[in-house]
Amino acid sequence: MRPLTIDSLNPAILKVEYAVRGELAIKAEKYRVQLQDKDNHGLPFDRVISSNIGNPQQKGLDQPPITFNRQVAALMEYPALAELAPNAFPKDVIARAKELYAEIGSIGAYSHSQGVPFIRKSVAQFIQERDGYPADPNHIFLTAGASAGVSLLINMLISSPTSGILIPIPQYPLYTATLAQHHGVPIPYYLDESQGWGTSVDSIEAALEKAHKNNVVPKALVIINPGNPTGALLDEATQIKLVHLCEKYSLVLLADEVYQSNLHKPDQHPFTSFKKVVRKLDSHVPLVSFHSISKGVTGECGRRGGYFECVNISEPIIALMYKMVSVGLCPPLAGQIGVDCMIRPPKPGDESYELWKKETDTIHEALRTRTSIMAERLNALPGVSCVDSPGALYLYPQITLSKKAQEAARAAGKEPDAFYALELLDATGICVVPGSGFGQKENEWHYRLTCLCPGVDEYVGKLEKFHLSFIEKWGLE
Amino acid sequence: MRPLTIDSLNPAILKVEYAVRGELAIKAEKYRVQLQDKDNHGLPFDRVISSNIGNPQQKGLDQPPITFNRQVAALMEYPALAELAPNAFPKDVIARAKELYAEIGSIGAYSHSQGVPFIRKSVAQFIQERDGYPADPNHIFLTAGASAGVSLLINMLISSPTSGILIPIPQYPLYTATLAQHHGVPIPYYLDESQGWGTSVDSIEAALEKAHKNNVVPKALVIINPGNPTGALLDEATQIKLVHLCEKYSLVLLADEVYQSNLHKPDQHPFTSFKKVVRKLDSHVPLVSFHSISKGVTGECGRRGGYFECVNISEPIIALMYKMVSVGLCPPLAGQIGVDCMIRPPKPGDESYELWKKETDTIHEALRTRTSIMAERLNALPGVSCVDSPGALYLYPQITLSKKAQEAARAAGKEPDAFYALELLDATGICVVPGSGFGQKENEWHYRLTCLCPGVDEYVGKLEKFHLSFIEKWGLE
Repeated sequence: MRPLTIDSLNPAILKVEYAVRGELAIKAEKYRVQLQDKDNHGLPFDRVISSNIGNPQQKGLDQPPITFNRQVAALMEYPALAELAPNAFPKDVIARAKELYAEIGSIGAYSHSQGVPFIRKSVAQFIQERDGYPADPNHIFLTAGASAGVSLLINMLISSPTSGILIPIPQYPLYTATLAQHHGVPIPYYLDESQGWGTSVDSIEAALEKAHKNNVVPKALVIINPGNPTGALLDEATQIKLVHLCEKYSLVLLADEVYQSNLHKPDQHPFTSFKKVVRKLDSHVPLVSFHSISKGVTGECGRRGGYFECVNISEPIIALMYKMVSVGLCPPLAGQIGVDCMIRPPKPGDESYELWKKETDTIHEALRTRTSIMAERLNALPGVSCVDSPGALYLYPQITLSKKAQEAARAAGKEPDAFYALELLDATGICVVPGSGFGQKENEWHYRLTCLCPGVDEYVGKLEKFHLSFIEKWGLE
Repeated sequence: MRPLTIDSLNPAILKVEYAVRGELAIKAEKYRVQLQDKDNHGLPFDRVISSNIGNPQQKGLDQPPITFNRQVAALMEYPALAELAPNAFPKDVIARAKELYAEIGSIGAYSHSQGVPFIRKSVAQFIQERDGYPADPNHIFLTAGASAGVSLLINMLISSPTSGILIPIPQYPLYTATLAQHHGVPIPYYLDESQGWGTSVDSIEAALEKAHKNNVVPKALVIINPGNPTGALLDEATQIKLVHLCEKYSLVLLADEVYQSNLHKPDQHPFTSFKKVVRKLDSHVPLVSFHSISKGVTGECGRRGGYFECVNISEPIIALMYKMVSVGLCPPLAGQIGVDCMIRPPKPGDESYELWKKETDTIHEALRTRTSIMAERLNALPGVSCVDSPGALYLYPQITLSKKAQEAARAAGKEPDAFYALELLDATGICVVPGSGFGQKENEWHYRLTCLCPGVDEYVGKLEKFHLSFIEKWGLE
């Protein structure tokens, strides 16, 4: 028999690239195993810091979960605990778990493929309170994190190999990866670093013109707000222009809003949902907005929970979406319960409220402080400039790499920023993602790092030391 | 702007069909809502019985979860419970949770995209104990149920629109749905109802010949063992022939073995894994075997947990698989913990063992008894013949439908068995899936029903009464 070989497989799969868990992450994983031999690991560091991925609760970062969320989850797993250990749970937790149990029954059962109807109603209520406009539970789909929803939408929208989707550069590589998987064409538009990674209609129209020349048919516009990897926030005036642009070019607006509650300067840079803007304008733009329990202060990545809301999407298309999600049966129940806890947190007066408030305030404050300290110290380094991001979990500093360093990188078969990031990992155990994984202008170099590490002094100290030694070795120009 | 319409979407999506959650399930859901108005629902039944889907823990069926599994899960959600309520948990549960916590950390963190390495090692150990041949944890992928793994494999294997995959008829419609989504061609081969839904090499070779004539290139053979919807079990002699057939035609063997522990007559009809057969033959056939926590006695559908094992698959292809699963980040942690509990249950001598044994014995026995009673009573009905299935969770009776009933169905725009199933739902609240959703020979009619309902007398009583009145109305020939 012929063996199964790579070249007999779907060529689209070969084209998929996902740097967040790519070469660097795989090497970091190997170092982590190597470090288990504490006395003889032979590495110049004692732990790996995975700054490549927004994973707040991972070992070594240890952002604690919100107690309320976990108490509800434990009671849903083992309802008898309400009787076996009544003193272990506040009253509002027991009440919430009983309410959910009455609606859901066992979390070991499949739910409605679109998600538990009761939780979808709560999500609709949350959206209405956030935006001041109603939401329809039948147009909300609970998902296994935002990624699952994005993948479904891209799969549905790519109708031929000439279908394209507008993607910001830099972008979260889920978008290009999923487009490659589903035979679609990315239409890159550039964010403006000099304007704090601003989004401009001109840049998108330039991209549309280029797509038109290449016979690529644009189907949708992806906006990530707050930005990933940039942390930038759109102001409402820009959002209005973007909705009008979608109207003009008949584009579906895919709004990745998973960082909507990670705001470091909410007075200067508040979050406005695209749902609110679309409703305010009374626009008919088809909008799909994604949210997740993996980010925010919830940080429950491992549960795989999230939702998307469809606006101005017709019933036959909603029915198609239902059919597609039904093939995968249902989103994980632990994730659905996580969504319920995120969008219905304890209220003032509830027994859990004080603790919940303290825990969430602490997480917000830590992230805000760390982001600002890190941006300041990175900006103080020679050859580094870093937008002090007002939202999300990341910084995306630009680094100047000398001709010599670039040549050494090319000789090693690497992008220059991947070369920098590999040297950083080898020297410090810090794993970041090179800008080439997110996209950037030609001859510019960046990397993305998370602002999640608890010991900011040790973390940035290592980055600084490495950067200075890198410059010493390779020069600055 | 142009509105978003169905005909602007991916045409492959339109072709997807998934009857298990199709028209009948949607109608049943509506009846369920209608029944909430207890006094004025206007329906001839008081509850909906969802026999369309193998969902043991759903409301109304209420197969209890295994206590051990849920205790471990609750401690993983809220580790402080081990101190707050030490008496609520057996010692082995606390030890297991601590062991898992030491490896995983918070279950709110993303794990390795392939699944927690420690749990993959345990799965490898389980496979080795089951088969007597070693397994490699690096070739095991934990998944969100078996469906997610099947979807990945089909996506990878379909390299062009002429790529085909051999699918048993009747089949679980995940296969044709996923093939349609990924632009592949199903190559149907027929199981032999007269031989207890046996699988024959001749039937597969006939299908291959037909595919060859149609210029369809076969890439893989799907075998569901124990069968779904048939419940049939392969004997080892047949499995050996099937492996040789895969060798002859260079096919990847996709072995859906999710019902491997649902055996009603294990002495006459034992389960043998394809992994064991491939190793025993020292064959080089590439094999991917799927397992799940949704079935068996675990029945934890809502957690979304499972795994697949790759055998004779080269490292570069494993690396590709890793890349693809990394785009989706990781399988749900609650599902991964569920896998650990399924493949490492309490052992004799452990504090939890007695209860675990009692609970699992009860589930096995109930399913065995119900399946046999249901098959016997269905077979006693005029115009019904039903293979008494030795495994899985279903029966798949054949029903004779009169010309008059067939004409009435066609006039209503329905397949005759869908017509029968809709009348059954309208009259009794019992939701089954018509055979047309699984595939069947021309002019044959079946339906699939689960053997999960607790009150077998009420359940079968309703089926009998309906069937007799259907015959009275439409005749038997």
